[in-house]
Amino acid sequence: MMLQEKINNTIRDVPDFPKEGILFKDITPLFQDQPLCTEITENFVQQFQGTPIDAVVGIESRGFLFGFSLANKLGVPFVLVRKEGKLPYRKTAYKYDLEYGSAVVELQEGDVKPGWNVLIHDDLLATGGTAIAAAELVKKQGASVAGFAFVVELDFLKGKEKINTYASKVYSVVNY
Amino acid sequence: MMLQEKINNTIRDVPDFPKEGILFKDITPLFQDQPLCTEITENFVQQFQGTPIDAVVGIESRGFLFGFSLANKLGVPFVLVRKEGKLPYRKTAYKYDLEYGSAVVELQEGDVKPGWNVLIHDDLLATGGTAIAAAELVKKQGASVAGFAFVVELDFLKGKEKINTYASKVYSVVNY
Repeated sequence: MMLQEKINNTIRDVPDFPKEGILFKDITPLFQDQPLCTEITENFVQQFQGTPIDAVVGIESRGFLFGFSLANKLGVPFVLVRKEGKLPYRKTAYKYDLEYGSAVVELQEGDVKPGWNVLIHDDLLATGGTAIAAAELVKKQGASVAGFAFVVELDFLKGKEKINTYASKVYSVVNY
Repeated sequence: MMLQEKINNTIRDVPDFPKEGILFKDITPLFQDQPLCTEITENFVQQFQGTPIDAVVGIESRGFLFGFSLANKLGVPFVLVRKEGKLPYRKTAYKYDLEYGSAVVELQEGDVKPGWNVLIHDDLLATGGTAIAAAELVKKQGASVAGFAFVVELDFLKGKEKINTYASKVYSVVNY
């Protein structure tokens, strides 16, 4: 069976989460199947072969899972982008708009070095707001975005069109 | 150099975080050093050799990092314990007291099966409140706690004395 088909058979659709009318793609069942998780990490490695990557940034909190295993596999630093107030050290912040209100994400100074090529990972690409926030934080530290890697992409929200101004390589294992 | 010494040399002390008077043990610099991360995961595997483990539970969100890599290494399911309202599927909740106020953590139904032996992981053991909450959630699903694994333990907060009623094996890589 193809990797995409396996993931599609494993992911759970949860209706009306986080609010009415949204069909949520729940990736947590993937973590019950570690051989499948290994295959996903290896798929990312394969897709970014030939792309220089000095660090992987993972976005809190589901981006910490495959992000960390990908960094470990590549043998490069794993860097945490977290919600406001969670990181203890000196940091830079980026505020962005949500459908209702706004959110802030942060990155610690020195976690990403000037000149580095950084791969940004999250579990899911929706409208792209959080991915852009992570990209802006990476740029603020003088580094470049080498690419974006997601497990799931929701095509109809057109996030890719917004984030491919930061890096030409935007890869998702499965698209809906 | 011993693993403990390497970790001790890498962890960063941040004074007055999250509030005045607390010397925070910042583990994020560990993630810059992937060979060291691999060594930590392998240390956990070694310490729990001979202990039957059917799943690893990781506590949001820093417990997702080594928790996931440990589950992957052991080839067993990785289960997420998350803060209130984050998990999409049917779930059980556990409320516990903090120094000021209270917190709720949740576990999805079916993620832990009755009769399983579950290893609970978080990055840091302080007073033990969150670890106990995770243990109670595991027990509510009819499973047993096989042990607890932490990267850092703050001995003076005596968390171990509270959680070793759930499992005899409580292991931390470094103690302060």
